[in-house]
Amino acid sequence: EYVETPPNHDPVHGLVAAVHTPFDDDGAVNLGVVGDQASLLHDNGVAHVLVAGTTGEGLLLSTEERKELAREWARSGGPLGVMIHVGHVSLVEARGLAAHAASVEAAGIAAMAPPFFRPSGLTQLVAWCAEVAAAAPDTPFFYYHIPSMNMDADMMEFVDRARERIPTFAGIKYTHSDMMEAARLLHVHGHDLDILAGRDEFHLPFLALGAEGAVGSTYNYAAPHYLRMRAAWAAGDQAEARRLNALTAQLVDLLRRAPEIAVGKCFVRHLGVPVGGTRLPLRQLTDEEERELLADVEALGVLGAARS
Amino acid sequence: EYVETPPNHDPVHGLVAAVHTPFDDDGAVNLGVVGDQASLLHDNGVAHVLVAGTTGEGLLLSTEERKELAREWARSGGPLGVMIHVGHVSLVEARGLAAHAASVEAAGIAAMAPPFFRPSGLTQLVAWCAEVAAAAPDTPFFYYHIPSMNMDADMMEFVDRARERIPTFAGIKYTHSDMMEAARLLHVHGHDLDILAGRDEFHLPFLALGAEGAVGSTYNYAAPHYLRMRAAWAAGDQAEARRLNALTAQLVDLLRRAPEIAVGKCFVRHLGVPVGGTRLPLRQLTDEEERELLADVEALGVLGAARS
Amino acid sequence: EYVETPPNHDPVHGLVAAVHTPFDDDGAVNLGVVGDQASLLHDNGVAHVLVAGTTGEGLLLSTEERKELAREWARSGGPLGVMIHVGHVSLVEARGLAAHAASVEAAGIAAMAPPFFRPSGLTQLVAWCAEVAAAAPDTPFFYYHIPSMNMDADMMEFVDRARERIPTFAGIKYTHSDMMEAARLLHVHGHDLDILAGRDEFHLPFLALGAEGAVGSTYNYAAPHYLRMRAAWAAGDQAEARRLNALTAQLVDLLRRAPEIAVGKCFVRHLGVPVGGTRLPLRQLTDEEERELLADVEALGVLGAARS
Amino acid sequence: EYVETPPNHDPVHGLVAAVHTPFDDDGAVNLGVVGDQASLLHDNGVAHVLVAGTTGEGLLLSTEERKELAREWARSGGPLGVMIHVGHVSLVEARGLAAHAASVEAAGIAAMAPPFFRPSGLTQLVAWCAEVAAAAPDTPFFYYHIPSMNMDADMMEFVDRARERIPTFAGIKYTHSDMMEAARLLHVHGHDLDILAGRDEFHLPFLALGAEGAVGSTYNYAAPHYLRMRAAWAAGDQAEARRLNALTAQLVDLLRRAPEIAVGKCFVRHLGVPVGGTRLPLRQLTDEEERELLADVEALGVLGAARS
Repeated sequence: EYVETPPNHDPVHGLVAAVHTPFDDDGAVNLGVVGDQASLLHDNGVAHVLVAGTTGEGLLLSTEERKELAREWARSGGPLGVMIHVGHVSLVEARGLAAHAASVEAAGIAAMAPPFFRPSGLTQLVAWCAEVAAAAPDTPFFYYHIPSMNMDADMMEFVDRARERIPTFAGIKYTHSDMMEAARLLHVHGHDLDILAGRDEFHLPFLALGAEGAVGSTYNYAAPHYLRMRAAWAAGDQAEARRLNALTAQLVDLLRRAPEIAVGKCFVRHLGVPVGGTRLPLRQLTDEEERELLADVEALGVLGAARS
Repeated sequence: EYVETPPNHDPVHGLVAAVHTPFDDDGAVNLGVVGDQASLLHDNGVAHVLVAGTTGEGLLLSTEERKELAREWARSGGPLGVMIHVGHVSLVEARGLAAHAASVEAAGIAAMAPPFFRPSGLTQLVAWCAEVAAAAPDTPFFYYHIPSMNMDADMMEFVDRARERIPTFAGIKYTHSDMMEAARLLHVHGHDLDILAGRDEFHLPFLALGAEGAVGSTYNYAAPHYLRMRAAWAAGDQAEARRLNALTAQLVDLLRRAPEIAVGKCFVRHLGVPVGGTRLPLRQLTDEEERELLADVEALGVLGAARS
Repeated sequence: EYVETPPNHDPVHGLVAAVHTPFDDDGAVNLGVVGDQASLLHDNGVAHVLVAGTTGEGLLLSTEERKELAREWARSGGPLGVMIHVGHVSLVEARGLAAHAASVEAAGIAAMAPPFFRPSGLTQLVAWCAEVAAAAPDTPFFYYHIPSMNMDADMMEFVDRARERIPTFAGIKYTHSDMMEAARLLHVHGHDLDILAGRDEFHLPFLALGAEGAVGSTYNYAAPHYLRMRAAWAAGDQAEARRLNALTAQLVDLLRRAPEIAVGKCFVRHLGVPVGGTRLPLRQLTDEEERELLADVEALGVLGAARS
Repeated sequence: EYVETPPNHDPVHGLVAAVHTPFDDDGAVNLGVVGDQASLLHDNGVAHVLVAGTTGEGLLLSTEERKELAREWARSGGPLGVMIHVGHVSLVEARGLAAHAASVEAAGIAAMAPPFFRPSGLTQLVAWCAEVAAAAPDTPFFYYHIPSMNMDADMMEFVDRARERIPTFAGIKYTHSDMMEAARLLHVHGHDLDILAGRDEFHLPFLALGAEGAVGSTYNYAAPHYLRMRAAWAAGDQAEARRLNALTAQLVDLLRRAPEIAVGKCFVRHLGVPVGGTRLPLRQLTDEEERELLADVEALGVLGAARS
């Protein structure tokens, strides 16, 4: 039925950390920390990063801040594949961010649909994505599908239309819970597109469906745990994979106690990288919340190695 | 952490068909068809049935009709394990249905939370379930979790509380998409409770998480397809399991073209069992819809054997 | 454009109390209290009642209980116009309730759309209503529009279709916040149908749009307050009407502190009519909640006269 | 109970047009049209404008475009009171827009809550607004409450907290359907804050509750119609006010046939001001849609005078 197309880019396999944006005590972007983040991730087995996405508080940054951050990751990312999130409510700004990402030679760009004036359907969504992608005509384009934040749309149909309109279309960060749609995407397009598991707590079911890559925030501090789970799965040890997956569920429960990004940044700081707090309208953790979260996450035993 | 409790009932493994309620041309319940349904299911490898649930248009029946239907399934179900859905907006009626199910020696009862005056929290939900279960004090009680229809609630917490209050608590029909919660339920309670996969199109991910039993409507007419998928999975042939799972996704797409229950009944009639149409407020299929659906489902090749 | 049709029934003007269902200490329906409820309402200026609706926990009663309650209100309602809510998830039961209401000579019947298997559109909704209404062919039929509980639908279109299919169609209990739709219904159909204001806290805006009748739960215990507001409005004293309306808002705030029906029953008991508590899955008030609510409602000064 | 505070700014009474942003054929902002828009509005009796709000596709513009547009309105607005919408997902950008609006001497600034990373509660929302307002410390600040786009919050409580934290807090553009909350805001704060009716189709109910000012998109082309309705209401002619209000409902129905902003721009072009089309992800009208909409709106007879 479907003709297999060869991929138009180097496949994104393994873990993609949706990295936090480091802030200093005054709330300004702290570019000096980016190199430390990159080292920590590399040491823990992460292969790629996604910059200025949801976890990166990307939409809370100014356009100028986003460009500086992208440039710094391109410079300091070392061996990591650097993908830049360029989604923005304003298409004008999104295109500017895409062109800038291309200028710093990002490995890829990703964009979520605008969360205000949500596209009314696939036609508008694809047209919008095509405009963004065209501003970086040689850079692989990933659609960041996160319907809880903007709009749902049939991703099988999206793929067909995106391929017609977007020569650089490379894949989907699938941040959604529809395992039937995920199954179809992976079955039909798993070999020529990157269908990236976009919910950390669904990592194991995505493996079962054949996913190769996964994007998430917990890979910032718990990557070795997920790599062990992937290894158990690959070795056919389903029981061990499930045991490790159950720990993941407990980790994600910790994240839900408070604003998830604030919790994640607390864990990264604990591993020795001073990523700072979060920006308004997100709230900061209290000292007591921090203490309890750190005690509980230590007890779980899922944190990766600290920065040496 | 968790002490393993031995199950308090015979485990429900394999496929549970959420059976349709047969109607005659005047829209009255057609009890004479139940035996044929049972034969078809048994011949196709189904082990259990759930009667008068969502697929069975249970809440569209009168209380009297529900009792007659339960009695008929208990009488004509043959070797099938017969579970009766007794959920009702009115607790008085739900208790009456539970007591009646016990009187006909149903293998189990299941209840969804009331969809009107939805319980405001776990305390009210567990109290409500306990009242229902107490009306059938020797019959295994299953909670039918279907938050799209009534309320969401933390199922890990529900299990803890249900065990305290409901001696007959036997498991959960999990009709939801939270694969993290499903993973935890299966990891912690998979050996002593029945955590039944409640969405046909998530069957494979549930297998990956360790589920043993599955309840659904497509097992009425496509059970052999699922049994092949389960066999491939059990044999370690993940690629084949994924291939069969992708067909499931296409089957479920057919169901979404029209009211799902009407489509399912059309498929069952096609296999030779005259289950009739659906009740208001559901709409019937047009002749053209029927023709197209049958052509498309035949092309998929997922239907089981017709009634001999 | 629209031809004015003469109304097919006696118009429902003034206040319609959505009455509570009285329960005794064991939670059984306490029919002996109905006469007291009727006296209290009549003494406070209420003209009509709606029995076994949302406020009346109607769907939590068994069919048998609903029939007994309807019979008792028909017998003890005195000069009050008695409307019976006959909505039910099962059309079979709804039709039985409608026929029964006709047999006790109810002044009208009302039905909300089923909250489970919600009609997929107007065609199914009107067909469903027509079946219910046909079971009481000489009794005025009101559609109880409460989209927060079941489904939204275009009520202007509904009216046109209902008039074609339902000879007894008499009006709408409009329990929704769309003041534009309400304005159109009242402008076009205000003279030949009863477009009843169905949210107590929107009473004043409905008056501004020309509504004559209003159905609500707070008229059980605060009718004189609303009658004062209506009188001020009729006399052209908008400032006074607004002042009284602002008190209504504070009253409704009290209702939102706990399950609204439980609070309302507490207020009615306080006026001397022992309507008892609520049924599962609703929760009861704590003693402390009751004390605080009664102190606060007394301070507001909106309660009507107690039973003499 | 409440001490009346004198207003801290000139009250905003009458009609506030939420103006469209003019685009040229290439989709660039067409500043040369702003003066024509201002003349049309002034000639039709509009007293104020809100620039770059929802109707103005504000969030679809780049920051630079928003500043240029604000400067142009300040320069060409003539006698109109010019309010600038400065809401942005990024607080950094929102503060920059606020400071810029102050620098061009806008009469006021307004901000909606960020639609991504929605504030988790009132504390975060007020903190966010305070940061925005502080960037324009001498300019009246209006909160643009539009919960369908971002978050709901208790506006009575918001007012109390905003007054403590925001010295320039001047009022609320209330784009919501909760007429009880609106009633309380107007009753308690109607004299010292501007509680602006933010839904054109609820204009009459807002008048009944005492509102003085109203912000909306239809005032761009139908202001005289609303002024007639307000005059009828003020003269005590409720029947005429209701008749005119019913026409408003029909006008709003036209808007809902297609993307509302595209329809509105079509009507403004029809009155002789070339505001152009809309930006992605909004879709443009087809020629046929335009023809039908113009025929239907002419038949309604609600359009104001064309540009002379």
